[in-house]
Amino acid sequence: MIGRYEVGSRNGVVYADDLAVGDRFELGSYTVTEQELVEFAGQWDPQSFHIDRESAEGGYFGGLIASGVHTIAICQRLTVTSLYNDWSVIAGKCFRNVNFLRPVRPGEVLTGSMLIDNVVLDDRGRGLVTAAAEIVNGDGKPMLTMVTEMFMRSRP
Amino acid sequence: MIGRYEVGSRNGVVYADDLAVGDRFELGSYTVTEQELVEFAGQWDPQSFHIDRESAEGGYFGGLIASGVHTIAICQRLTVTSLYNDWSVIAGKCFRNVNFLRPVRPGEVLTGSMLIDNVVLDDRGRGLVTAAAEIVNGDGKPMLTMVTEMFMRSRP
Repeated sequence: MIGRYEVGSRNGVVYADDLAVGDRFELGSYTVTEQELVEFAGQWDPQSFHIDRESAEGGYFGGLIASGVHTIAICQRLTVTSLYNDWSVIAGKCFRNVNFLRPVRPGEVLTGSMLIDNVVLDDRGRGLVTAAAEIVNGDGKPMLTMVTEMFMRSRP
Repeated sequence: MIGRYEVGSRNGVVYADDLAVGDRFELGSYTVTEQELVEFAGQWDPQSFHIDRESAEGGYFGGLIASGVHTIAICQRLTVTSLYNDWSVIAGKCFRNVNFLRPVRPGEVLTGSMLIDNVVLDDRGRGLVTAAAEIVNGDGKPMLTMVTEMFMRSRP
């Protein structure tokens, strides 16, 4: 099952109990520009290999690489705009195993997918949903994997 | 041992082998404004409880709360400006156990600290450093805990 349109829902909202282990969703793509890469890191992660092109070219990676926090932010944006805006999310509980597998470089096209790993309903009208996201680059190589646990509302 | 000035270093740079399990660092403080909270989430996590004050006031938390990605970004900024800019960081490898313990609300003052959990030197001139960060609010209540694994250069 791929894509949000195949998830059962009422009134257009996806509740915790509409999700099942193994459900898989495509999150779409996002291109990270050098300007955005440098601006994001300048504000949130001002290390030289993220913000100083000259220094980065002589450094470990031979050029600028994106902040890992930026890559997480891109993954979150892709997930919200393709899924969560129709989902009954209460809030995130945690991220686990956020792996920065390869350096993300300017101009790369990042494409995401998400797999539902677990759904646990409680007696307070909520469900704890565990979802594993993966971001790949234009060559299909994994750049980021991360697991999110979030509370969602159950179907009223 | 608290504070970067008590870490041994040569030439002003802190290498992996200058760090020891149990070293603790203060990261300073950061105030998250409502404007920044909404702008960050508008770009990276546009869920209603992050970006729509009116909807948020009638919702689960009774008001706007910061994106968890924003809180991670603040933690990273505090760490870079107080520590990593003097440390021989190569790159992050992963974040583990990123726990969003309480909702971060507009105007809160977030203060960070970091504890070195592990240092493993390899034979390629690097060390894998594991560090646990904690962000507390003005009442000293934990808001975010996360563990970072990063590669640093060993002392040349």
